[in-house]
Amino acid sequence: MIELHLIGIGTGNPDHLTAQATRAMNEADLILLPRKGSAKSDFADLRRTICATVLTRPVRIVEFDMPLRAADGDYAQAVNVWHDAIATVWHEQIAAHLPKGGRLALLVWGDPSLYDSTLRIAERLQSAGLEVTVKVVAGITSIQALTAAHAIPLNPLAGPVTITTGRTLRTHGWPVDADTIVVMLDSGCAFDVLDPRGITIWWGAYLGMDHQALEHGALAAAAPRIAARRAALRARHGWIMDIYLMRKEQVDGSH
Amino acid sequence: MIELHLIGIGTGNPDHLTAQATRAMNEADLILLPRKGSAKSDFADLRRTICATVLTRPVRIVEFDMPLRAADGDYAQAVNVWHDAIATVWHEQIAAHLPKGGRLALLVWGDPSLYDSTLRIAERLQSAGLEVTVKVVAGITSIQALTAAHAIPLNPLAGPVTITTGRTLRTHGWPVDADTIVVMLDSGCAFDVLDPRGITIWWGAYLGMDHQALEHGALAAAAPRIAARRAALRARHGWIMDIYLMRKEQVDGSH
Ligand SMILES: C[S@@+](CC[C@H](N)C(=O)[O-])C[C@H]1O[C@@H](n2cnc3c(N)ncnc32)[C@H](O)[C@@H]1O
Ligand SMILES: C[S@@+](CC[C@H](N)C(=O)[O-])C[C@H]1O[C@@H](n2cnc3c(N)ncnc32)[C@H](O)[C@@H]1O
Repeated sequence: MIELHLIGIGTGNPDHLTAQATRAMNEADLILLPRKGSAKSDFADLRRTICATVLTRPVRIVEFDMPLRAADGDYAQAVNVWHDAIATVWHEQIAAHLPKGGRLALLVWGDPSLYDSTLRIAERLQSAGLEVTVKVVAGITSIQALTAAHAIPLNPLAGPVTITTGRTLRTHGWPVDADTIVVMLDSGCAFDVLDPRGITIWWGAYLGMDHQALEHGALAAAAPRIAARRAALRARHGWIMDIYLMRKEQVDGSH
Repeated sequence: MIELHLIGIGTGNPDHLTAQATRAMNEADLILLPRKGSAKSDFADLRRTICATVLTRPVRIVEFDMPLRAADGDYAQAVNVWHDAIATVWHEQIAAHLPKGGRLALLVWGDPSLYDSTLRIAERLQSAGLEVTVKVVAGITSIQALTAAHAIPLNPLAGPVTITTGRTLRTHGWPVDADTIVVMLDSGCAFDVLDPRGITIWWGAYLGMDHQALEHGALAAAAPRIAARRAALRARHGWIMDIYLMRKEQVDGSH
């Protein structure tokens, strides 16, 4: 019997950790940490730093190699195959290190509910016949890291917000019925597909981290600035994670 | 010169507090706590408990009476008048307790970006000529408390999510372009306006608190169950806060 704790750790700032997350880590029998490719080694380092900072008991930590996702072929299928492969690796680690069951903790970037695959991978363990109970510890998301850094509200007064991906924005355009949208998982400036008139953007990269970068302004003026800065930062650090919020001016001109 | 820290405290569980929030509270010169009407005194109590638990320095705490919002008349106008009144009260408290400036902390339910008025009230202080710098400390939102309690993802795989209010759902129906919606600020079962076919709901009340209540299932079957439970809980506790996520089955039947 495995109790699997998916623990949200926030988006790069170890101080995003909640008291609940700290407790869940300390109560674990095993913490599994993914070793990532070198470009993203900052992430593995952050997880190690967090463990070193918050663990007050000698909790066992095991690192494992994350399978890689196929970059070619059908996207949804590649993701499915990749999730299967990760589930297999978790299964092996559990068999090797928790053969009699116990509490397994995984540290999840941001919050486990938001564009993250660990819940879906955990389901695969259950489908494979492993007795797993899943517990989620909420973490600060990159959406909140963005709005906090800019000190802006997410929603317009009493109005809705749509959270979407760069890919969806590119293929479907601005979502119908939305004044405010948040775009995540954008491999590069999907806002370029929009008519920028009346749109304001708040952009952030490496939120919560030392090299946090922010831009905001009317989309027409900000878009080329963001594109240039994004390219430069990416070249400098070898990787980038960014997110942005855009608001369309409402008919009465207010936000 | 006032540095105003809007500190997200999560949604009822003191363990939602982040290390960053704890630090910001301890570094404050003054923490202002609203005294709420008796029905919602649980909230004021929670804020006091949090202060008692996390403060390791003798930070000054002052309680003030929150102005009440007019229940009648135009909604948007009533909200505006109410925000003006709160800004005036903050202004008075600052004049009385931080006449030479300093760090003022306010504890905000959930995250300050999400259906919360403190950022908009802070803007009013600035418009009134007070020199105020606003800093936001992100907190766990009720959305994350909901998805964590049910151990479910927020978004469908790579798909968008719309966050909306009970009022908007009632007046506009299911938002176009959305498979998944989260409904907040619902004064009572706005899902009743929907054709329930193909919709699954995950509902939660008092999330993170001792009397947390959860329901989920096909909307047709769950709706009457939720309505009855909501009414009973509300009668028992004198107040209720609830939130729910609904997914429409996609054409291919997967989520
Ligand atoms: C796979 S998703 C994971 C999201 C995460 N679970 C969360 O709660 O934020 C990765 C995307 O999140 C956003 N993101 C995560 N961390 C970020 C950060 N520190 N700065 C900017 N964007 C970030 C980016 O849009 C990135 O493409
Ligand atoms: C004024 S909004 C504040 C939201 C808050 N800033 C947040 O981040 O969650 C209040 C609404 O949030 C939701 N909510 C807040 N706390 C909740 C809780 N503990 N359980 C269920 N719903 C909650 C309800 O939909 C409620 O009507």
